[in-house]
Amino acid sequence: MTPAEARARVVNARVGYLATADAAGVPHIVPITFVADADRIITAVDGKSKRGTRLRRLDNIAANPAVSLLVEFYDEDWSRLWWARADGIAAVLTNGEARAGVVDLLRARYPQYSTVSIDGPVIVIEVRRWSGWTAGNMSL
Amino acid sequence: MTPAEARARVVNARVGYLATADAAGVPHIVPITFVADADRIITAVDGKSKRGTRLRRLDNIAANPAVSLLVEFYDEDWSRLWWARADGIAAVLTNGEARAGVVDLLRARYPQYSTVSIDGPVIVIEVRRWSGWTAGNMSL
Repeated sequence: MTPAEARARVVNARVGYLATADAAGVPHIVPITFVADADRIITAVDGKSKRGTRLRRLDNIAANPAVSLLVEFYDEDWSRLWWARADGIAAVLTNGEARAGVVDLLRARYPQYSTVSIDGPVIVIEVRRWSGWTAGNMSL
Repeated sequence: MTPAEARARVVNARVGYLATADAAGVPHIVPITFVADADRIITAVDGKSKRGTRLRRLDNIAANPAVSLLVEFYDEDWSRLWWARADGIAAVLTNGEARAGVVDLLRARYPQYSTVSIDGPVIVIEVRRWSGWTAGNMSL
């Protein structure tokens, strides 16, 4: 899969899986909603997330900004499988105009944010590599 | 979500997302098919995977055995969302009776393996923590 096709598949997915790792390299993974803006991926700590505790994804990014975001399609017909991935470097925005601008992008993409709060930190990933795979590459 | 409920949701999922990290802590994530056996998760490098190159998931586990496996359900009705996760320590089996036994578990779970090869290394994850979340924990 070309980087352009991988990017298109990531951009169009409604949910992705964000992997981070702590300073010791222990990985952590959570599903996220997100929006793409050029070569950035934006996701927020929103009302879907756990409250009252500092989130591990944020601690991990503070200690180690390398992240990986996967989107995929599963079907019992394995000839239809595909996945696409964005690997990059993340930063956390806690306030300010930059945060407000990317929150607007999230609200525009997900009408659910009209009733789900989105007042937590925002993660912005600068994507360094788009990659992917489809079952069309192999004989099953 | 209780550990028992998280385990049940992982065990019943048909696809999961496996996060590993290299010695420098750079995370990597791929979709996998898998089978659970007590507190172990088993997945194989099979005919769905890329051929001809050593897979990064295997290199990562050799350098850093900590892994995280996510399963989840997404719906545009966010009150139906849930995810579950198994965090643990992975080992790679390349041959022998132990590998053959767990391959049999994979074949029993996925009829697709009657036509997809399953002759590569097998990853066995000893799960140390089952956790999860459902949207039922929050008001949307």
